Amino acid sequence: MGREEREAGSRKQGGSGAGGPASPCAACKLLRRRCAQGCIFAPYFPADEPQKFATVHKVFGASNVSKLLQELPMGHRSDAVSSLVYEAMARVRDPVYGCVAAISSLQRHIQLLQSQLAFAQAELVRLHLHHAAASHAVTDTAADADGKMMLSLDVLLDHALWSC
Amino acid sequence: MGREEREAGSRKQGGSGAGGPASPCAACKLLRRRCAQGCIFAPYFPADEPQKFATVHKVFGASNVSKLLQELPMGHRSDAVSSLVYEAMARVRDPVYGCVAAISSLQRHIQLLQSQLAFAQAELVRLHLHHAAASHAVTDTAADADGKMMLSLDVLLDHALWSC
Repeated sequence: MGREEREAGSRKQGGSGAGGPASPCAACKLLRRRCAQGCIFAPYFPADEPQKFATVHKVFGASNVSKLLQELPMGHRSDAVSSLVYEAMARVRDPVYGCVAAISSLQRHIQLLQSQLAFAQAELVRLHLHHAAASHAVTDTAADADGKMMLSLDVLLDHALWSC
Repeated sequence: MGREEREAGSRKQGGSGAGGPASPCAACKLLRRRCAQGCIFAPYFPADEPQKFATVHKVFGASNVSKLLQELPMGHRSDAVSSLVYEAMARVRDPVYGCVAAISSLQRHIQLLQSQLAFAQAELVRLHLHHAAASHAVTDTAADADGKMMLSLDVLLDHALWSC
């Protein structure tokens, strides 16, 4: 192990991105194994962020994460790691519901917004009907007397209502 | 293993819930191990739903699920299993984003609803201002002539606007 560690320490890792000799990636460090050239974890779990891999390992297991990454094209691996880290952190924070808690919360938020939107739209329709009626009443009683009705409420409300 | 399997087969499992002798739970069946009395998986992974455990095992690993359940009080384990199954199924369906895809989709839906709601509320305010102005204009020109203005637009709009 001593020789392997020295080898790993003298090799640049895809994930470290720093100049000079890089340490083994966070995954290999935690798993106490040689961080070989082409290590599947190295580009996504740099040595300076050990908590990311520790959390993912605790929740999903290194073997499952490795298998999942290997089955994905290179271009999707970074996003997969981000989503795994997000899920794992949510599970550590809330062991019962994990990130399903966030989904439930967002769904409740959507229900609230939908009811507020339905109410606002119903109010707009109600105003349209009331003011259409008011407009006719005013036209019948006052328009002949003055002829200076400047605003057409029907036109105004039609524009306001059906544009949303 | 033969004797153990017979023992497991002749014992009722917490998760099976059926009358008569129950088979080992889905977890022990998949892991090819004895389903002992008090098996941590048995109440939540009945034999007649093998896919639930298979999916959770593939994504999280049996050992991680077992550890997680053991750390939770009994009353929370069923919810934890439900959320794990949900997450695991989402990850199998979408290996890159898992259930984070659902979170992103819900967040986009919330943004859309928030902008629709803001628009509807702005329309209500705009109508309020326009009709308040129209009401004053009509009052100035026509109310003296007839005196039969039946609707107070200000009152109507005040009621409509500030109740939402």
